Amino acid sequence: MTHDTSIANGLEGVVAAATRLSHVDGEAGELLIAGYPVGELAAHATFEETTWLLWHGELPSSRELDTFRAELAALRGLPPATMAILRECAVSRIDAMDALRIALGTVSLASTEATAIVAIAPTIVAAFSRLTAGHEPIAPRADLGHAANYLYMLTGAVPDAERVRGIETYLNTVVDHGLNASTFTCRVITSTGSDLVSAVVGAVGALKGPLHGGAPGPALETVFEIGDASRAESVLRAKIESGERLMGFGHRVYKVRDPRADVLAIAAERLFTRAGDMRLYSLAREVEATALRLLEEYKPGRRLQTNVEFYTALLLHGLGLDVPLFTPTFAIARVSGWIAHAIEQRQANRLIRPKSIYVGPRDRHWRSEDIAAD
Amino acid sequence: MTHDTSIANGLEGVVAAATRLSHVDGEAGELLIAGYPVGELAAHATFEETTWLLWHGELPSSRELDTFRAELAALRGLPPATMAILRECAVSRIDAMDALRIALGTVSLASTEATAIVAIAPTIVAAFSRLTAGHEPIAPRADLGHAANYLYMLTGAVPDAERVRGIETYLNTVVDHGLNASTFTCRVITSTGSDLVSAVVGAVGALKGPLHGGAPGPALETVFEIGDASRAESVLRAKIESGERLMGFGHRVYKVRDPRADVLAIAAERLFTRAGDMRLYSLAREVEATALRLLEEYKPGRRLQTNVEFYTALLLHGLGLDVPLFTPTFAIARVSGWIAHAIEQRQANRLIRPKSIYVGPRDRHWRSEDIAAD
Repeated sequence: MTHDTSIANGLEGVVAAATRLSHVDGEAGELLIAGYPVGELAAHATFEETTWLLWHGELPSSRELDTFRAELAALRGLPPATMAILRECAVSRIDAMDALRIALGTVSLASTEATAIVAIAPTIVAAFSRLTAGHEPIAPRADLGHAANYLYMLTGAVPDAERVRGIETYLNTVVDHGLNASTFTCRVITSTGSDLVSAVVGAVGALKGPLHGGAPGPALETVFEIGDASRAESVLRAKIESGERLMGFGHRVYKVRDPRADVLAIAAERLFTRAGDMRLYSLAREVEATALRLLEEYKPGRRLQTNVEFYTALLLHGLGLDVPLFTPTFAIARVSGWIAHAIEQRQANRLIRPKSIYVGPRDRHWRSEDIAAD
Repeated sequence: MTHDTSIANGLEGVVAAATRLSHVDGEAGELLIAGYPVGELAAHATFEETTWLLWHGELPSSRELDTFRAELAALRGLPPATMAILRECAVSRIDAMDALRIALGTVSLASTEATAIVAIAPTIVAAFSRLTAGHEPIAPRADLGHAANYLYMLTGAVPDAERVRGIETYLNTVVDHGLNASTFTCRVITSTGSDLVSAVVGAVGALKGPLHGGAPGPALETVFEIGDASRAESVLRAKIESGERLMGFGHRVYKVRDPRADVLAIAAERLFTRAGDMRLYSLAREVEATALRLLEEYKPGRRLQTNVEFYTALLLHGLGLDVPLFTPTFAIARVSGWIAHAIEQRQANRLIRPKSIYVGPRDRHWRSEDIAAD
């Protein structure tokens, strides 16, 4: 067969859309969010501002922002049907991303609006997290911002300004990132003329996959496993020599340091500094430096760099989130990006329908005897 | 901007996968299902045989078939949580495809198995159809085949052999069709390492879109609107001249007659002949012939041919299905194809992650004044 040369495997390098939402420059290690360097936007904006920016192309005026914050705050509560199915999810102890997919899908019962989807996502994640821990969900508070309210619903404590800044920065940093697999899923579904909830639910399913959104946990677990900087080299060397992939390093697009890693590292440093305990942060930086040195030693020229997962894990851990919350929290951010892509896809829509090449049998014919033998 | 030339708009012509499942030859008007001409397979196989064929590459032995039928039959019932959310869907009168997406997503509460997803899909569609009509759902019967049980659950009447053959033929005909948008969605989600339920739920969301699975209703409505063959030319001419697209004609891939249209036309003819009333069938054939003549007159060289939707509508109507059931019934069939593609994707997986090209603003910088004005 000579077909292999013509298959765009994984669609690597295929340009499937033009976008005004984010610019990923993998060679330069740069990421723009609607024109802003990710570091500037992420460290200063609220998540409501970033969401508005992606949906409208410009930052909101103060009046627009007030209205948008109020709209989102008003839509945070879980309808009874959503709460009921979420309790079933907790009883069955299913994966948190499956629970988010199931519960978020019920938004269709009341709305197909973008704001309803974004508003309810943190409430679902927080409620499921509490239910699986044996606690009752905490009702959202409309007087808190989107990000602050998420932390509040996890514990019942109103977070201080540093922690709010930390979660805002995280959500902004990962809100959009070109045509990653979940965003692409969202655009494919949208391209059929389907609705926003269907598109976002499909994207949640894609983000669940460990090759996409499902790996920030292991990156942190490696740091914990090492425990002390003096053990970093021996543990990492053993992992590499046994063929294990180092979680938190390497990315299909970035061949230099993922710019999001820097943003999150700065946010983590700030958070841990204020908290007065730099041990984990310092350990993580030692682990990172050792990992990069060893990766260059064992895989020279592969340009494996720190990716977004490594400092995601550190920052979210610093914010008090457990590992099972990492990917759902990623989803809470990315929902706004997905919807922005759906809006953009609709503005210049063309059904996304690639081709396959057939490599199976031919000239088969139906005979009733085909099923007579055993 | 010069970017447009490099964007694979809609991924048209891009080969995104090799497959052994179906071969779509748009120029020759041929469709193979795992090597069998669609007409031969669809007209003779049961849906269980076709599903097994796609999942295993060969038709089942009689023992394998017995076991598979029994497995599917045992998994047909709706768990209480699924029934509860489906009742909410009916109360809210949401779209039948949204209800299918929501209810099918709850399969994760008990299973991630392919058989569980295929088995429960018809039960969900039938239960929702009855609930929205104000009737109680009818429990599935394990002694009926997959297709026969679907018709049974819609009405409570065990269908005769002709009707069973009709629905088997329909389900087999549309079970798989290359990398259509829903199947591609399923493969993208699967490529992240995510689970089967997530992949199928995403695909249901894509199939809902009117540019994909959502158009068989309008094709039939045009036939009803015409009502009498003598009015076909005037009604169709008025539609074309007003710029309206004729539903049931034209396909991105097929430039000759969609081979599935023939299979379904034969099945419809047989069904209507046995039922003793050929009026609707004869009218549809007249409408088709007139439409093709007028399309060639108004759009010469465009090669707009009868597609699968036209005779889908006629056959499903003949089987007693209302228009809102058309796309969900399509989904009941395509679930098996989606899962076959997920299995195939896993066998040679590579994350599906295309690129986007950035066409938005650059050099924006964060200033607090950005949000001070109104």
